[in-house]
Amino acid sequence: MGKKETTIYDIARQLNLSPATVSRALHDHPAINRNTKVLITQKAKEMGYRTNTFARNLRRQRTNTLGVIVPRLNSYFMSTVLAGMEKVANEAAYNLIITQSLESAQKEIANAKTLFNSRVDGLLVSLAYDTEETEHFETYVKKGIPLLFFDRVLAHKQCTSIVINNEEAAFEAVTHLIAQGCRRVAHLTGDLRRNVYAERLAGYRRALTAHGLPYDETLVRTTDLSPEAGTEAAAWLQHLAPMPDGVFVANDSCAVSCIIALKQAGVQIPEQIAFAGFNNDPVSRVVEPNLTTVHYPGQQMGEIAVKTLINHLNGKESLDATNTIILRSELIARASSCRGKSL
Amino acid sequence: MGKKETTIYDIARQLNLSPATVSRALHDHPAINRNTKVLITQKAKEMGYRTNTFARNLRRQRTNTLGVIVPRLNSYFMSTVLAGMEKVANEAAYNLIITQSLESAQKEIANAKTLFNSRVDGLLVSLAYDTEETEHFETYVKKGIPLLFFDRVLAHKQCTSIVINNEEAAFEAVTHLIAQGCRRVAHLTGDLRRNVYAERLAGYRRALTAHGLPYDETLVRTTDLSPEAGTEAAAWLQHLAPMPDGVFVANDSCAVSCIIALKQAGVQIPEQIAFAGFNNDPVSRVVEPNLTTVHYPGQQMGEIAVKTLINHLNGKESLDATNTIILRSELIARASSCRGKSL
Repeated sequence: MGKKETTIYDIARQLNLSPATVSRALHDHPAINRNTKVLITQKAKEMGYRTNTFARNLRRQRTNTLGVIVPRLNSYFMSTVLAGMEKVANEAAYNLIITQSLESAQKEIANAKTLFNSRVDGLLVSLAYDTEETEHFETYVKKGIPLLFFDRVLAHKQCTSIVINNEEAAFEAVTHLIAQGCRRVAHLTGDLRRNVYAERLAGYRRALTAHGLPYDETLVRTTDLSPEAGTEAAAWLQHLAPMPDGVFVANDSCAVSCIIALKQAGVQIPEQIAFAGFNNDPVSRVVEPNLTTVHYPGQQMGEIAVKTLINHLNGKESLDATNTIILRSELIARASSCRGKSL
Repeated sequence: MGKKETTIYDIARQLNLSPATVSRALHDHPAINRNTKVLITQKAKEMGYRTNTFARNLRRQRTNTLGVIVPRLNSYFMSTVLAGMEKVANEAAYNLIITQSLESAQKEIANAKTLFNSRVDGLLVSLAYDTEETEHFETYVKKGIPLLFFDRVLAHKQCTSIVINNEEAAFEAVTHLIAQGCRRVAHLTGDLRRNVYAERLAGYRRALTAHGLPYDETLVRTTDLSPEAGTEAAAWLQHLAPMPDGVFVANDSCAVSCIIALKQAGVQIPEQIAFAGFNNDPVSRVVEPNLTTVHYPGQQMGEIAVKTLINHLNGKESLDATNTIILRSELIARASSCRGKSL
């Protein structure tokens, strides 16, 4: 027969305090003064008190499930983020349920509702192209369900964001192209309503200015960054007069298809046009020449996002004071941009 | 003011039958005889009766949500399947919630439970590497929640499977390599407990036999089909004596990394080793030489899977009699295998 479990009632009786005071002290409630807290936690330890996680979960109606909304599942970057999320969720006995907004704000709203009805304990969101309001997340905020944005984020007073410094990463990539001798650098970007693309454009622009090159908006093309957009951009580049001698692309899959189309047209990479992409997709090491790119720590972003959310749920670490977490990214120079000039 | 809606009670009163009989007849219940059904449906049509879908959904506790369990999200093939599923689900106002088993039966069991508690109306499953039992799906079968397996399937009397003819596709790919002059063809495969890999191996074996070549099990290597496994396989291939002159790989990402490693070691593709992969991933058109592969209709598989499930849920088409749906695949011959010999 097992030893009877110590309850807050046992502790309260021993200390001649109310069970409510004991409970509040053990949950670090601000209404209980420090000395009383010390007294109660010491007694609890002495009596071998264990938090009844299961009962607490029932009371809190926990499902040990986290919801995820991503724009699309068909990118290497997103699959590494999700792999990182699953790893940490698994270790903490949480399950993920994942939905795609397919870049549509309307579908993002429907997903938020579905996941709310699935009673997720927390929500992780990377926004769709055209999301402009966050009204659909207010039900979560009101119910105290923590909400965390990653990669494609939006300023929200009550939510935390996890990002990389997109502007700085783009600045480095374009500075590298300029150091390799490029003087007319084009930029392929995505929907500029999203922070990641707006910030990469800002970094591109700042690098030009910092190195005394003019910013020419006719060299910036907004696309959906698909492989098809890369093929189209190859035709566009060849018709610009004079042809740019460098291109910074906001993702790798678009950069790779652009390189392939240019090679087929007889353009030499990097001699005529040097290329830099973004994300460090595996395809960047398959294309010839290998693509210079920015390593985006997707796995780490996913791990930190879920760890932060679960710590918050378990009361180990509050998200309330944290506005933004910024992770490090890294430029990886490869043959697509290296013309043998040192930085 | 709108016209008052006709109810089953109105129809029952007109025909002097019980409302239960009318309801059963309109839902094609087997306990009602054919003549009564004809009488009731004609009267219902005459009186302008409309099924109250919303009320029926409430009664049936529909959530308009479908659950999906996939092994991993990080493959092009799976993202095309999911894109097809989302397309059809969207059009029918259903939402998908997606989970990954990460190739673990244990996690697949946890996912099945999570999705059950999320009250999905139907479940779509592609099995993990090590799933050997289907006990965890019985709660669905018992509750009458339809269950559909796709790609990686398991025989189950009450469930429908959607697949391609993996054996035939592999037979064609290996026959093509033999027609190009290969006489010693190796095969890289995945976990043979899964139908897709077992069937591709069977097709490989049948093609060798059909063309008078011996089956040599030392030329078959079981891996996890990751890019890393492809790099390792390149070293293995070079140590086989004599070196194989053809390789059939059960997926493209593994084949591509194997080709890259062999090229770095100075092996000529296709002259020394001809290659064929599987799936028609975009990376098959990036690697040089471009990879011969089997086009796997993932988008179509996803579309048909969800269409079939929703038709079943709406009573338009019953799954009860359908055991298996087989889709067409197609061999795409490219430079990685073509030595200039015609088939």
